[in-house]
Amino acid sequence: MQQISQLQNLITHYISKKKYGTTPIELYEPIGYIMSLGGKRLRPCLLLMGCDMFGGDVEQALAPALAIEVFHNFTLMHDDIMDKAPLRRGKPTVHEKWNANVAILSGDVMMVEANKLIMQVPDEKLRPVLDVFNDTAVGVCEGQQIDMNFEDREVVTISEYINMIRLKTAVLVGGALKMGALIGGANNEEASLLYAFGEQLGIAFQLQDDILDVYGDPEKFGKQVGGDIISNKKTYLLIKALELAEGDNMAQLNYWLNIKQFIPAEKVTAIKTIYNELAIREHAEREMNTYAQQALLNFEKINLPNKRKVILKEFADMLMVREF
Amino acid sequence: MQQISQLQNLITHYISKKKYGTTPIELYEPIGYIMSLGGKRLRPCLLLMGCDMFGGDVEQALAPALAIEVFHNFTLMHDDIMDKAPLRRGKPTVHEKWNANVAILSGDVMMVEANKLIMQVPDEKLRPVLDVFNDTAVGVCEGQQIDMNFEDREVVTISEYINMIRLKTAVLVGGALKMGALIGGANNEEASLLYAFGEQLGIAFQLQDDILDVYGDPEKFGKQVGGDIISNKKTYLLIKALELAEGDNMAQLNYWLNIKQFIPAEKVTAIKTIYNELAIREHAEREMNTYAQQALLNFEKINLPNKRKVILKEFADMLMVREF
Repeated sequence: MQQISQLQNLITHYISKKKYGTTPIELYEPIGYIMSLGGKRLRPCLLLMGCDMFGGDVEQALAPALAIEVFHNFTLMHDDIMDKAPLRRGKPTVHEKWNANVAILSGDVMMVEANKLIMQVPDEKLRPVLDVFNDTAVGVCEGQQIDMNFEDREVVTISEYINMIRLKTAVLVGGALKMGALIGGANNEEASLLYAFGEQLGIAFQLQDDILDVYGDPEKFGKQVGGDIISNKKTYLLIKALELAEGDNMAQLNYWLNIKQFIPAEKVTAIKTIYNELAIREHAEREMNTYAQQALLNFEKINLPNKRKVILKEFADMLMVREF
Repeated sequence: MQQISQLQNLITHYISKKKYGTTPIELYEPIGYIMSLGGKRLRPCLLLMGCDMFGGDVEQALAPALAIEVFHNFTLMHDDIMDKAPLRRGKPTVHEKWNANVAILSGDVMMVEANKLIMQVPDEKLRPVLDVFNDTAVGVCEGQQIDMNFEDREVVTISEYINMIRLKTAVLVGGALKMGALIGGANNEEASLLYAFGEQLGIAFQLQDDILDVYGDPEKFGKQVGGDIISNKKTYLLIKALELAEGDNMAQLNYWLNIKQFIPAEKVTAIKTIYNELAIREHAEREMNTYAQQALLNFEKINLPNKRKVILKEFADMLMVREF
């Protein structure tokens, strides 16, 4: 069994060594660039953990693990164009540093590169792993489209929101674990339990992200605290507040959602006050804990000795108590 | 053995029956739209012919054939964004009818859909077919980037141009045939000969396209005759003319390449006059015939009875004497 930090070192080293194509340079330089911006490398680590848990050789799973990270960064490169995001991890996005055409085409070739990497598994595992990979990729695309649609929608329900984050974030968490499990030798039933664990954990993780965006410690949280409030992002918190608010709270909420010019800190304070009156944080934490518990129920059903499960359990706990 | 028209009917029917996902509608409606715009369906037909030639069951090759057409249309959807093209086959492009974000994300999901379709082959053929598919996809992306780079370049050489059209157009012709051959039961050597045939035929085909754009019959050619001249597109003809022109011809050529406001028909006539004086059409036809002949030499090396090769040979001849 490998410790989390060992797995993270393995994948970080493997990412730093990997060479992509060379010419034309406009196609390949952005791949090296976005892959070098860092990030927590959670998804490839999950694949390695899924593999390790079932006794697979993590060294043999490094290429598929990298596939997950390349795929994830491909989606970020295209999402950043669509969202007109100027920065990614504090650095200029690819469409800002180069241009949108470069970001479209580099992203396309990253998707092919991810396919080539995920294929580096034994023949008998090729089809099952690719099936999960493709289903995951479709889910992530659907999630991104639904997320964009939400921006133009007046009303979004909690269940629609949960389905969106399931597709946009959680299927890749589940998919990475399931592919790792299949590579490591799990049968389909065990791999599916690990998928369910990952998907529910992914939903909990995103709800945690929504909470941290409002209640996180500015010193520790990677993004600007209050960013979601400032941009009227329809997170669990805002959707729940719109569902529960009445009278003066509702009037205040609508006032701040519709005002065009405002002092950001004032808006954050005002909306946080409404959230506090409606106990939105408690609602969100309850929802998050429900998914985290469902995730663990599936995890417990996996028929492996506890000592094989301890690392992933620890990782899941770490994800759920994070402040960053 | 199946006749060309039978294969075309098969694939056209298969394309019209195929259903993609349903929600979110913004993701899937553009796929049905672009796939319904028609086109000659040459690439999927080539896959079926490659399969049929080696005695494979073309019915079993329909999903992979569709994969080629879906992949091709994915590249068109993204290329149209990059080229800011308003029309595709006379209809609004996806980014015009919807928007660029929809065209990016629908294209992405088409790429995944193509991967799912190409996987519909027997297990023992999965890896070889996917390897060709991925190499082809990388080539097409590289070709598109090089083509875009040419727009900003002063000088492009003939060999750079041939390499660009090889990547952008010909590797997919070769790849479709090779995948078909592998599915049909060809060994690697035979499949590679068919690839070489297809790649060289694809280069000849694109050179033919360059010639038709200037010298085609406006009644038969699908696009506007002279379109490449009007837009200063660096085709084989223009590159060769810039290589050969001297004195007054060179001055005239530069005049028309740099003028911002002009009457299109006048520019087309003026540049055609220069082309005629420099015998550019003959140069282009000689180059085209060289590639067509090289293609046929590889085709002849394939160890199959002539009766199995006759349909594809007929198809290649048809492609090379086309006026559309």
